[in-house]
Amino acid sequence: MSSAALSLARRITSITAHLQSGMARPKVVVTRNLGAEAMRLLDRSDLDVVAWHSETQPCDKKWLYDNIPGATGILLLFSEKVDQEFLDAAGPTLKVVSTMSVGYEHIDVKALAQRGIKLGYTPDVLTEAVADITVMLALMAGRNVKETTTIVQNGQWSAYPWAPYLFCGSQLSANWLQPTRTAGFLGFGRIAQSTLARLLPFGFTRALYTGNPSSQPKPARDAEMHAKYASQGLAEFRRVDIAELARESDVVFVLAPGEPSTYHVVNEEFLRAMKKTAVLVNTSRGSLVDSEALAKACREGWISGAGVDVVEGEPHVPADHPLVKEPRCVVLPHIGSATNETRLGMGTMAINNVIAGVLGGNMPAELNMSR
Amino acid sequence: MSSAALSLARRITSITAHLQSGMARPKVVVTRNLGAEAMRLLDRSDLDVVAWHSETQPCDKKWLYDNIPGATGILLLFSEKVDQEFLDAAGPTLKVVSTMSVGYEHIDVKALAQRGIKLGYTPDVLTEAVADITVMLALMAGRNVKETTTIVQNGQWSAYPWAPYLFCGSQLSANWLQPTRTAGFLGFGRIAQSTLARLLPFGFTRALYTGNPSSQPKPARDAEMHAKYASQGLAEFRRVDIAELARESDVVFVLAPGEPSTYHVVNEEFLRAMKKTAVLVNTSRGSLVDSEALAKACREGWISGAGVDVVEGEPHVPADHPLVKEPRCVVLPHIGSATNETRLGMGTMAINNVIAGVLGGNMPAELNMSR
Repeated sequence: MSSAALSLARRITSITAHLQSGMARPKVVVTRNLGAEAMRLLDRSDLDVVAWHSETQPCDKKWLYDNIPGATGILLLFSEKVDQEFLDAAGPTLKVVSTMSVGYEHIDVKALAQRGIKLGYTPDVLTEAVADITVMLALMAGRNVKETTTIVQNGQWSAYPWAPYLFCGSQLSANWLQPTRTAGFLGFGRIAQSTLARLLPFGFTRALYTGNPSSQPKPARDAEMHAKYASQGLAEFRRVDIAELARESDVVFVLAPGEPSTYHVVNEEFLRAMKKTAVLVNTSRGSLVDSEALAKACREGWISGAGVDVVEGEPHVPADHPLVKEPRCVVLPHIGSATNETRLGMGTMAINNVIAGVLGGNMPAELNMSR
Repeated sequence: MSSAALSLARRITSITAHLQSGMARPKVVVTRNLGAEAMRLLDRSDLDVVAWHSETQPCDKKWLYDNIPGATGILLLFSEKVDQEFLDAAGPTLKVVSTMSVGYEHIDVKALAQRGIKLGYTPDVLTEAVADITVMLALMAGRNVKETTTIVQNGQWSAYPWAPYLFCGSQLSANWLQPTRTAGFLGFGRIAQSTLARLLPFGFTRALYTGNPSSQPKPARDAEMHAKYASQGLAEFRRVDIAELARESDVVFVLAPGEPSTYHVVNEEFLRAMKKTAVLVNTSRGSLVDSEALAKACREGWISGAGVDVVEGEPHVPADHPLVKEPRCVVLPHIGSATNETRLGMGTMAINNVIAGVLGGNMPAELNMSR
């Protein structure tokens, strides 16, 4: 061959290799625009990324099922349901599903395990944001925030002259009448631990928790907790049964997973056993709390108030929902992890999970499906 | 005298002494019903107590001026104004005025001093309740609570499908993007100190404060603060000028007294210098903050949000007040100390102040008027 022909042949080979490598780039489907700052991480030459355009609107099902066939990785949110139909549509190329969430109720984990598909999720990164809102709701629940902000918003402040007990609620922090305070945790995982750390300077000296009744006691962990916070005033850290938790706590924090065994664990019996000055906070899952019973407890003064970031049946919570109507119950629309910093962290982790799962690296957070 | 006559004479003497002691009992006027639990403390044979009947309504002026003449002690609230006219009406018997408040803007302190009348007030007892609400407002200001609770109350939750940045605000606690947090205090007294203690587990490692420009630095106190909280992560505690405070803080806490030198110290210049992700909290006095400038700062995104328990001109704060209209500003109707525990503590202290001032004991909290 002439040198010119050789050069041409080399160029063609090179172009073909490039095309083949292009055709072989693993496909990653991303079902939401996660914002420019996060999406930039997916802008790489070794992946073929197909992403839904909108940040606020979920992708439509046609788009999803048009695009997932042949995907190696799929990054998705709560809005997408991963079941057998979904996995059949994606086909045998699928190696990893990455959800931008700490929960995975929308995913058939067993079906993934059977097909050898990895699952990435985003634990831990939202712990501090949720602990923040948990403490905020404990404060709001005791201090008549719902009633008083409504009065201000309606321009009625001047209609309420100062009076010794006007707008008074229960004090979260220790005080001259109650020199110690007791926190009660229904479930004691990472968010509970971060919440407890925040409560210590408020004068909480006792922390009680109930674990899953079928789980083993963890004396070593409990001793470690106690030792860690003893210098900041924690005098007692103890696992108790649910009746003692209800009876002894000045604040009950519902921080357990939403599953059949925890359904309505906060019911009328539990709420009737609580102190009249206590408050209840739920920042985990709505299904743990019987909404009707909680509304009644607030209305009839069994407890001082409540603050919930989650409600059973959400987001279908109408204006006449018993908790929404109840002046002593603050209801937030599941914004526990809703800070720019945390959501960007979750997006970044979900992206790094899908990239590592597809290219064969270590996923920052892979769910252990054998548990 | 016969023994019967002697006995009779003794009985008469005793009755006369009793009547004289009754007539000589010092008069204490109480301008509000402070609730059964507190009022019980005034139920004593050595005082002649005259109390207004209502807990919620201030006493009328006629009742007040009919009753204060000849009083030795007067227990009152913000609703009563103590000026020369008031003191002339009470007359030369008056030894003590006891206000159920930590502030005494309603009292002419100089006039009291000139007449040698003591002033009792109720400091400290409300510190923890106000620190609680200060932290609560710092959390609420960052987390879009006003907007999101309104959506829930209107039954609109289901109209907002989950999206990565829906309802997102600024995170108070340290996070992966911001591993340290800085608290800025405009004024560093007891409430500021209790607030700082509460912030440490949120990951605040720096505390800056500005003092009254005419006051001397307090290096010993500052070193003590730093040493006290160093083990809980406080790396820096420092007095700074107001420009540095605005520039460096992730949260600015307004906790200085309301007086001419602090009028509108938080103005447009201050707010423009703050971080876009920062929030402002005012739980001291409304006059320190320019409401128009703060509303503009929230509206135009100079800062992330604000939470105020006090507003200049309160309680005359109409529904169309710029801060009330502003979605990123939470406004509470001055409920900082409004817990049952703290208000009972304040009432008890005010009562013990007036009793001690009248009968000659040590007043639990007497204002030093020579300062």
